[in-house]
Amino acid sequence: MKKINFKSKFSKFNDQWSPKVIAEMNDYQFKLVKIKNDFVWHKHDDTDEVFIVIEGIINIEFENETIELEEGEMIVVPKGTKHKPYADEEAKIMLVEPSGVINTGDNEGDLTAPNDEWI
Amino acid sequence: MKKINFKSKFSKFNDQWSPKVIAEMNDYQFKLVKIKNDFVWHKHDDTDEVFIVIEGIINIEFENETIELEEGEMIVVPKGTKHKPYADEEAKIMLVEPSGVINTGDNEGDLTAPNDEWI
Repeated sequence: MKKINFKSKFSKFNDQWSPKVIAEMNDYQFKLVKIKNDFVWHKHDDTDEVFIVIEGIINIEFENETIELEEGEMIVVPKGTKHKPYADEEAKIMLVEPSGVINTGDNEGDLTAPNDEWI
Repeated sequence: MKKINFKSKFSKFNDQWSPKVIAEMNDYQFKLVKIKNDFVWHKHDDTDEVFIVIEGIINIEFENETIELEEGEMIVVPKGTKHKPYADEEAKIMLVEPSGVINTGDNEGDLTAPNDEWI
């Protein structure tokens, strides 16, 4: 059993939009991601997805609104909900979702990241 | 859909060792708890449990070691693992676990808190 330090984990990678797994709880994973600029519109048909902002400011565009989140804030994106995250400056976030979820959901492409990449 | 601000949610309650639900993702819940002094030894036979420290310092005693966690750190306590959290000064933490988990696990008593209490 080992504790996990977010800052220390974030220092281990530099690529953006590529989630790194730091912990597994039952069949769920906790993933750290650095994000900057625009992601792609996508949805996850089978699961909700949690975003927690660890450092910086992110925005999540939905079809009818855009929500800004800063450090110490989280949101649950319900399954099947189209969304597009973006950040003007690099931000550090944590995702919580079932193991196996693909970052780009139903919209695979250049930003689709390898899955289950642990740091 | 609404974002959740941890500081704002923590300002809504003062009782200790009584988890308040702030979000649900699929059949999992995110709960905030203020803790101080000793909890009881217990285990959760059916699920892992995640502790994330939002503010302050906590300790989790296990049978063979004690792990100290500070702000920005988390740990996954595997299912079936006996543990006893404590904090010398009040600390603020977030738990992630399946809905329905009882805070005192297999050791119900004075510190057993109401379940599914939302703020």
